[in-house]
Amino acid sequence: MSDPIKRVVLAYSGGLDTSVILKWLQQTYNCEVVTFTADLGQGEELEPARAKAELMGVRPEHIYIDDLREEFVRDFVFPMMRANALYEGLYLLGTSIARPLISKRLIEIAAEVGADAVAHGATGKGNDQVRFELSAYALNPDIKVIAPWREWDLTSRTALIAFAEAHQIPVPKDKRGESPFSTDANLLHTSSEGKVLEDPWDEVPDYVYSRTVNPEDAPDAPEFITLDFERGDGVALNGEAMSPATLLAALNELGRKHGIGRLDLVENRFVGMKSRGMYETPGGTIYALAHRGIEQITLDRGAAHLKDELMPRYAELIYNGFWFAPEREMLQAAIDHSQEKVAGTVRLKLYKGGVYVVGRKSPNTLYSEKVVTFEDDAGAYDQRDAAGFIKLNALRLRLLGRRGEG
Amino acid sequence: MSDPIKRVVLAYSGGLDTSVILKWLQQTYNCEVVTFTADLGQGEELEPARAKAELMGVRPEHIYIDDLREEFVRDFVFPMMRANALYEGLYLLGTSIARPLISKRLIEIAAEVGADAVAHGATGKGNDQVRFELSAYALNPDIKVIAPWREWDLTSRTALIAFAEAHQIPVPKDKRGESPFSTDANLLHTSSEGKVLEDPWDEVPDYVYSRTVNPEDAPDAPEFITLDFERGDGVALNGEAMSPATLLAALNELGRKHGIGRLDLVENRFVGMKSRGMYETPGGTIYALAHRGIEQITLDRGAAHLKDELMPRYAELIYNGFWFAPEREMLQAAIDHSQEKVAGTVRLKLYKGGVYVVGRKSPNTLYSEKVVTFEDDAGAYDQRDAAGFIKLNALRLRLLGRRGEG
Amino acid sequence: MSDPIKRVVLAYSGGLDTSVILKWLQQTYNCEVVTFTADLGQGEELEPARAKAELMGVRPEHIYIDDLREEFVRDFVFPMMRANALYEGLYLLGTSIARPLISKRLIEIAAEVGADAVAHGATGKGNDQVRFELSAYALNPDIKVIAPWREWDLTSRTALIAFAEAHQIPVPKDKRGESPFSTDANLLHTSSEGKVLEDPWDEVPDYVYSRTVNPEDAPDAPEFITLDFERGDGVALNGEAMSPATLLAALNELGRKHGIGRLDLVENRFVGMKSRGMYETPGGTIYALAHRGIEQITLDRGAAHLKDELMPRYAELIYNGFWFAPEREMLQAAIDHSQEKVAGTVRLKLYKGGVYVVGRKSPNTLYSEKVVTFEDDAGAYDQRDAAGFIKLNALRLRLLGRRGEG
Amino acid sequence: MSDPIKRVVLAYSGGLDTSVILKWLQQTYNCEVVTFTADLGQGEELEPARAKAELMGVRPEHIYIDDLREEFVRDFVFPMMRANALYEGLYLLGTSIARPLISKRLIEIAAEVGADAVAHGATGKGNDQVRFELSAYALNPDIKVIAPWREWDLTSRTALIAFAEAHQIPVPKDKRGESPFSTDANLLHTSSEGKVLEDPWDEVPDYVYSRTVNPEDAPDAPEFITLDFERGDGVALNGEAMSPATLLAALNELGRKHGIGRLDLVENRFVGMKSRGMYETPGGTIYALAHRGIEQITLDRGAAHLKDELMPRYAELIYNGFWFAPEREMLQAAIDHSQEKVAGTVRLKLYKGGVYVVGRKSPNTLYSEKVVTFEDDAGAYDQRDAAGFIKLNALRLRLLGRRGEG
Repeated sequence: MSDPIKRVVLAYSGGLDTSVILKWLQQTYNCEVVTFTADLGQGEELEPARAKAELMGVRPEHIYIDDLREEFVRDFVFPMMRANALYEGLYLLGTSIARPLISKRLIEIAAEVGADAVAHGATGKGNDQVRFELSAYALNPDIKVIAPWREWDLTSRTALIAFAEAHQIPVPKDKRGESPFSTDANLLHTSSEGKVLEDPWDEVPDYVYSRTVNPEDAPDAPEFITLDFERGDGVALNGEAMSPATLLAALNELGRKHGIGRLDLVENRFVGMKSRGMYETPGGTIYALAHRGIEQITLDRGAAHLKDELMPRYAELIYNGFWFAPEREMLQAAIDHSQEKVAGTVRLKLYKGGVYVVGRKSPNTLYSEKVVTFEDDAGAYDQRDAAGFIKLNALRLRLLGRRGEG
Repeated sequence: MSDPIKRVVLAYSGGLDTSVILKWLQQTYNCEVVTFTADLGQGEELEPARAKAELMGVRPEHIYIDDLREEFVRDFVFPMMRANALYEGLYLLGTSIARPLISKRLIEIAAEVGADAVAHGATGKGNDQVRFELSAYALNPDIKVIAPWREWDLTSRTALIAFAEAHQIPVPKDKRGESPFSTDANLLHTSSEGKVLEDPWDEVPDYVYSRTVNPEDAPDAPEFITLDFERGDGVALNGEAMSPATLLAALNELGRKHGIGRLDLVENRFVGMKSRGMYETPGGTIYALAHRGIEQITLDRGAAHLKDELMPRYAELIYNGFWFAPEREMLQAAIDHSQEKVAGTVRLKLYKGGVYVVGRKSPNTLYSEKVVTFEDDAGAYDQRDAAGFIKLNALRLRLLGRRGEG
Repeated sequence: MSDPIKRVVLAYSGGLDTSVILKWLQQTYNCEVVTFTADLGQGEELEPARAKAELMGVRPEHIYIDDLREEFVRDFVFPMMRANALYEGLYLLGTSIARPLISKRLIEIAAEVGADAVAHGATGKGNDQVRFELSAYALNPDIKVIAPWREWDLTSRTALIAFAEAHQIPVPKDKRGESPFSTDANLLHTSSEGKVLEDPWDEVPDYVYSRTVNPEDAPDAPEFITLDFERGDGVALNGEAMSPATLLAALNELGRKHGIGRLDLVENRFVGMKSRGMYETPGGTIYALAHRGIEQITLDRGAAHLKDELMPRYAELIYNGFWFAPEREMLQAAIDHSQEKVAGTVRLKLYKGGVYVVGRKSPNTLYSEKVVTFEDDAGAYDQRDAAGFIKLNALRLRLLGRRGEG
Repeated sequence: MSDPIKRVVLAYSGGLDTSVILKWLQQTYNCEVVTFTADLGQGEELEPARAKAELMGVRPEHIYIDDLREEFVRDFVFPMMRANALYEGLYLLGTSIARPLISKRLIEIAAEVGADAVAHGATGKGNDQVRFELSAYALNPDIKVIAPWREWDLTSRTALIAFAEAHQIPVPKDKRGESPFSTDANLLHTSSEGKVLEDPWDEVPDYVYSRTVNPEDAPDAPEFITLDFERGDGVALNGEAMSPATLLAALNELGRKHGIGRLDLVENRFVGMKSRGMYETPGGTIYALAHRGIEQITLDRGAAHLKDELMPRYAELIYNGFWFAPEREMLQAAIDHSQEKVAGTVRLKLYKGGVYVVGRKSPNTLYSEKVVTFEDDAGAYDQRDAAGFIKLNALRLRLLGRRGEG
């Protein structure tokens, strides 16, 4: 039907599954595989991926291992945080926001090495396949995408391990049996789903958590921090200027220690089913609340309410994989326009799983003590204006009560 | 200009301010005053209001003291909670939602006693004047509304107390000096604002809190509870069926004990200024999260996302006082339509200021383990469908990349 | 993979394509075919479909020919019109709104005859396949759907005709060659697309139009009509009460005569491509404007603006085939709630392709000459209230200009 | 209460009303008046305003007469048209969009001449007072605004004329009696309201129209034109490049000749009442449809639908006077982002009041004949993908039908 594939760039973690995919692609498509391994702050050693790829015959110059942490936070996480994005009211979109960046790099590498296809290890039931592929097609309409999990017959763990052993792919001990759940991690969050998490009535077992202590084990004393913002983005922690990724990493440490950012969620996948997941977003949870805190005194009501109304759509677009779609970019243009003056300092209290904004100040503040104070001598606000304001706001409601009088 | 006022129904708390208003109305308008005191669960004795009103010459049959707690929770709080309403992302609207009910009762009483006006004690800078008056006008387009704080010259505390003393109105000791902040309370929440809270950089002093213990003083062990829902509304706590107001009161006790529902907020008032407030919504915070929890497994994605998109507007309408406006009723019709099957049980963990949904189950569940499981033999979901799904979702993005090719 | 299909209900027009499908289904699936032919006001004889079906061996009791015109207008067209639905600002959704009704009947018949599948003749590139199938699955999650155009190899006209001739299916002369465009028709509209219409720069040839005269050939004198509404629905034309379908048919005659309701459109299909179509919606165009006219005096601003904001989403849902989805029903609940008092008479001028609302009156009018008049002695509106109204609306804008002053 | 006003800039038309205001301001406020007369294409001689102002003692250097036509169309009309803005589904906002520009210039002049106030001649019942003043306050939070119609007692025509005569202000003959309606005009439209138009059941008398011929008197032959767009804005008519104001003026001539752009509307004013107006927007009506036409082939569905959903809010903001509010600017940023590639040519037919898009082409077209054609050999679109697309879109609807199965 279509031309044979000659060279494919694979999103390669170095783990068992993507190693099997690497081999399977070489065999099935009789093509050259280029590997791309991204450091998004998932906290794993990446160099072993190089050795494995070489072992499977990938050319050294075709092994890409990139540290994308700063780009990830600066160009993806922070813009999303400007929108106060929450999917279904609760989820900070930690997995969703990483996918477009990986696809962007896959497509860039494909252009560099002259590949005609990209491949990923996401399954056929999840959102990630959609996110990877929509981004890939948006950035290169002619690219081919291979999703082995939708094609092959290695759909059981047994079959996968048999294939690995048959092809000298090392199988780590803990991958031999069934893993009790699966995870994804990056600098923003760790997600877990499957197996032991599948009954939404059962509490998430403690051993599933990896990025945060149990709130019950967090320090008995609260910790207070400050976060500084410029143009809607975090720039300093406790007065110390930090790059985006460094700042998020530091907040992650604080969040971990205080048991912050655990979320047990049943969510609606784009592919049409509900799934239950557990998310840990320690630093992101602190950051998101702090951003709301600084907006409270620097954002006008009209801008703030418009943002709140646009947010669910914006979050849905990111969740569904439409980061590179025109409508997401339009919403981003509107959101970014609102952030020009979002600057200042937020003070937060961290305690046993909780984050509390306890103070905020800004050189750009719109909060006016002079206007709000009960006994206002300055005349900045004339209380009698309220009578007219109410009267005209009420007019249409009163006319409703007189309907038909003409 | 307009006809003289003969009889006015006053929203009367029995406190100093509304007692002064009572007297001032009698003097200024030379009219008969009818008092209405509502029990909305604010936790104060109401009978003293009767004695005071009588002392100031109100006719016994013109003193209304009504227990509105069940109506408040059943017809106002619960419908609002069905919408997951949060103003500016955080505020559970505890003050806003009580105002329309008070106005409704004021207008009913005005009809009963043949009054031509109603009066309230809200100031000219806040939202409450708007909420009272919009509701009053919506329910009776011909009613007159008197807002003494916008009319009189008793705008300083000194003048007010002088007036009280000149008219034999008892002045409680703690009202003599300046109160360090002002509060409003009902079964859903307590709000505090003004004076010591006016600098949004200063942490809210501990003595301002009255409805919750400090999370640091909450029990060291978490408590687990279950909440049952029917048609979107809470019906039972820990398996015990309860009326709406009883349920909310019980949740308030749990929230108080575990330090749940404190919020320090700078918000945008409808009258155009920013103000800083502190809210305690102990039971409401638990309830709101539980409602989201049960919706997660019983609400379809289309319904859930539409609700999320409509919510900010809905919350704004309530905040601004448009409860009795057609557009609020339209949104309510949409929201209520979605709640038919929102039933089941949510299990929650309460710990040191935090509320965590840890389990949910429902006879109406839309969550299907069969469909979501990784290794699906039942064929409920064909992974190959995802390829076509993605391809067609990507088509327009690919065509963007080929713009101009025709 | 799945169980063999025993009995299938086919949406059968009696034309060449669905006759071929009928035969193909019998052959390919070795199953019994039940035919369903709907009168939606498309203006064709339906009885010939019976003879043809019998000829191909369909059992007499398995041939369904139903007049759905009243149900179509009453339960689908009118509810949609209450929303003032326009897809992409212009299209009155004439094709989209018929599909869910056809699917509803297919599923009902499938239940009656114990069929395990339904089939339709829509192609694999259009919206109709989506609309048919989403509706079918929503009404019966276990139904199987057969879409021959996506399965078979009769994808060229030549192959199709060869198949017909090989199976004694009569081929009308005008179907032998290539049709210069394809059409769909019902009581609301006729749509045309394909072939001669495919270049969006070329004007639609005059011979494509079938439901309206060319405006240039319309009468030289305008015609004035009145349309009466009750609860948001049309009930009488020129004072004469009519059933929904009768009313729409009468408006179609008027529209045809005056050349009203032609639309040349390039639209975005749900399946991801743009297509160019030509629509004739003579009566619907008149009706839609009249409905807006009566709403102008009977709908409150809050309700009207909320409706306008919800409309694009509502129209998109219908266009995409989500009539039976919860979110469409939620929006309908909101819209219907607003229509209670939408009653009265609209006077319209029809002239050479144009429809002009020239008058409207209602027993429920919200329009008040008393309030709007320049010289208002009645005091219904105090112009000084406007000063306060503006001042408070301006407050936040003024504070923006003083940002940072605190 | 506040400081005396020393110098005020008046929006001065040179007509009777604003001449009376000029004199009244000098008398009442004992202040110096600066006049500003704008050419917005209203089609009146402006120099007479200079003579009149001088006669009333305005200093020559304090008489501003500015041609704002290009700025009006380029910076206000065209950006609004990019949004396809229609208020309440029908109104092209011709009056609303002119007000912020007048206020902008008033505030600029106030800064130049050191004025502490601005004044306008809008009444206390309309929208224009709100639009003038919100814009003024947004651009200068400290400005004072004088609205004589809300302050003075010259509220009857008789009183006004008596004042004029008492102060040697010439009263034109046609202003002596009651004008049968009032009008406002600029390059985009003429609006008429009041008196003979106040009963919304009465047809607008023919003599009210001034910018368009009656469709019945328009040419019997249609006229075809082309309009070229770049980045969402019109740049050429019939192939001839034109500046924004020149282009709109040329379209106005075409619209006038063909009777295009008449609208009889009952609308909802921001101040809470309904009013009936008649609008003539000849060129704007043509332009608006052409803009939709070019967007049809150059705008992606995601962008187009988001624009449609944001439009009602955007139109409401302009109607209500919030041009200079942050939320309007946010929406503009989103809209403008979408217009980058909106370029090409639209062909239109003008005939007896009607405008019909009959063709559109673009170097940036997203319309692909290759993809849309029924018989597609190129394989750009695989019809089998539709099966998966539908299956996954249907999944949640099917799960609804299986609710409770788990």
